[in-house]
Parts: sequence; structure tokens; C-alpha cells
Amino acid sequence: MRLSPDQAQKIAEDLSLRLERSKTPVPIGVSNRHLHLTQEHWDALFGKGSQPKKYRPTRQPGYYAAEQAVDVEGPKGKIVNVRVVAPHRTKTQVEVSRTDALALGLNPPVRGSGTLTGAAPIKITGPKGSVDVPDALIIAQRHVHFSPAEAAAMKVKDGEFLRVRAGVGGPRETVFEGALARVSDKFALEFHIDTDEANAAWVKNGDLAYIV
Amino acid sequence: MRLSPDQAQKIAEDLSLRLERSKTPVPIGVSNRHLHLTQEHWDALFGKGSQPKKYRPTRQPGYYAAEQAVDVEGPKGKIVNVRVVAPHRTKTQVEVSRTDALALGLNPPVRGSGTLTGAAPIKITGPKGSVDVPDALIIAQRHVHFSPAEAAAMKVKDGEFLRVRAGVGGPRETVFEGALARVSDKFALEFHIDTDEANAAWVKNGDLAYIV
Repeated sequence: MRLSPDQAQKIAEDLSLRLERSKTPVPIGVSNRHLHLTQEHWDALFGKGSQPKKYRPTRQPGYYAAEQAVDVEGPKGKIVNVRVVAPHRTKTQVEVSRTDALALGLNPPVRGSGTLTGAAPIKITGPKGSVDVPDALIIAQRHVHFSPAEAAAMKVKDGEFLRVRAGVGGPRETVFEGALARVSDKFALEFHIDTDEANAAWVKNGDLAYIV
Repeated sequence: MRLSPDQAQKIAEDLSLRLERSKTPVPIGVSNRHLHLTQEHWDALFGKGSQPKKYRPTRQPGYYAAEQAVDVEGPKGKIVNVRVVAPHRTKTQVEVSRTDALALGLNPPVRGSGTLTGAAPIKITGPKGSVDVPDALIIAQRHVHFSPAEAAAMKVKDGEFLRVRAGVGGPRETVFEGALARVSDKFALEFHIDTDEANAAWVKNGDLAYIV
């Protein structure tokens, strides 16, 4: 096979872009199971007038894990103590690992945050009551957060799919394909995976990954 | 950069070998938590004179999952109903996922089967008694089983580390680095991963992977 000058140029540019991007280490954020609530569901679970209390900030500006937690339940099991992330949203969204989903007896789809098409039904119980939400349970799609400046520096566009290498030097080095790029001035550089993905690659919160 | 003819030749040969290998689909075997027992530990847990009863064969010739199961326990938790794989071995070996290990409150290393250096301690309880084994708990190293003929056809040597692509076409395509090649006339072609790895790549038992 003989490449045309145009083909050769395109390959060279792609390799050069990948090489350039891979020089910026991306901190890994491991998402444990958690949920976002609407005001209405919060009121039903914790009581009207009550407020989420800050437990600790997340790396993404403006969000925080609350002290409050709920139980979630499916046909085969229950998981207790699932933490609320605040502030509230316009749709209730429960994010679990596939390991969790199998324990609950549910088969939620992999979805980007905020995309609840085909999400599985889930029962949520708080100290003041329960709600049955028909379309709230998802397994989070692996994704990389960028501020606009970070995205520009790495020539990444919002919605692009990236390949991310993690666990380099450890016993389970892994390349994650199809990591969704999400660019917003509310975001900071971070590669988000769930606990199954983190355990598969033998990485933990704050370890470094590389876009390759 | 200009390659020497020798360097170019080497790269061409490596690419050609990878291309050739990737043409053979490798069935995925997802290992759920399980254990192998010594005769002595079996006797302590199930009673002297009792025998493992075949529940179903594994894909690897000669081994079978037994009907019998045990509970395993660490400082933070207990997992019930962990299945025994027979026939017995010369060392007791308990294989769990990292998700399981964290639930037990233990920090076992990633190890190839039969290599128990640094393995974590674990308490095992059966219907007739309990044993505390100081060095039995591991997290299995991803590996590929080959018969000698399969290894020869794919030019793979025992002990070699392979790169395996899984979940192609699914929502979580993943490339597993450092998969240990294990060649034996007791083996059949299969890529073994644990439940964390299977969930991370969104694959299940019998799905196909590719050595790339």
C-alpha cells in the first residue's frame, strides 16, 4: 500500500495531535453511586423546607456532595446510604455502577448525565417518605470535563469522543474508548469513571490519565 | 525522523502479527467470585468424606463449579454463597473483584492464579466449620487461556503479555493491557476477566474479544 501525500499528511497531523494531547495529565475522578434530585422529590424524601447540607465540594465547581443520603431499591435488592449531590436539578437522576444495578435487579442503560432516555425505574426512600421514579436510573457514560480554555489548549471539541489511557505502571493498565468530551465554563479538567471502571483499571481518585 | 530499513521491517512485522492475531475472536469468560480449596480446608468446611458435587463444567477442561458454596469474611463485611470450583488444589485460593474486596475491607493484590505471594488473609465458613487462611485472597490478573495449537496458530508464547480489545460496538469499548498468556493442553481459548472488568467494558460471558 502506498499513501497519497494527502493521506500521509492527515496521518501525521493526527499522530501529532494525539502526541500533543497526551502530554497533559488528566486527574481521574471516580464517581461512587450518587443521585441528583428535583426540588419536588427532595421535599417528598426529606420534608418541605429542609435544605441539603454541604458535606464536601466536588471537583466540578458549584456542585457538592450533601450530608443527606437515601436508600434505592429495585426488584432484587436495596442499596442503602446513597449520597445526594446538590444543588437540585430539573430531573431526578440516580447513577450507579453496573455491579450495583445487577444487585438491584435492574438493567439501566449507559447514559451521559442529563440524558435519561430509557433510564430504568427506581424506588427512592428518605427519612420522610418514598418516591417511585419511572426513568431515573442510569450508568454514567465515561466522560472528560474541560473548561473552555483547557479544551482549546488540547484542541478538543464538546461532544467529541476521546480515548483515555489509565492505570499506567499499575497491574491493570486500561484504555477507555469513547469517553465523551464535555466542555463548559462550569467544568474543570477531570476524567470521570465509575467504580467498576476504576477497579478494572486499578486506579483511584486523583490518579492521572492520558488522552491518547 | 527517518526509519532505518531494519526498524521499518520490524514495525511492519509487528503490525502484520497484530493484524493476523486480531482475526481470531476470543470468547470472554467472566469470572464471578469463587474459590479453590485444599482437601484439608474442604474437610474442615464440609466434613471429612464429603465430596464436591458437580453444578456445571467451566469452559476450561477438567474443572467444574460445585454445588457447594461458602461465606467469606473480612474486617468490614461478609460475602455469602461463594462457589467452590473443583477439583481441589494444593493451596486454597479465593478470587474476588476489587468491588468485593473493598466491601470485605481487604486489599488483596492482583495475581495470576496459583501465585499467592502477598495474598490477603480471609476467613472462610462452610456448613461444618470455619478456617482462617493467612494468604488466600487475590484479585485475578486478566489472562488468556490457549491450547498449545491455538497459541502456535496465533504465535503466542506462554507468559507473554497481550493487549485485548473488548466491547466493540457497545457503549463501553475497552482495551485491556497486560493480559497474561497462559498456554496448556488443559486450556481452551478464552479471555478471563472479573466482574469489574466485564462491567467496565459492558461485556458478558461468551462475548468476543480481540487480541490487538
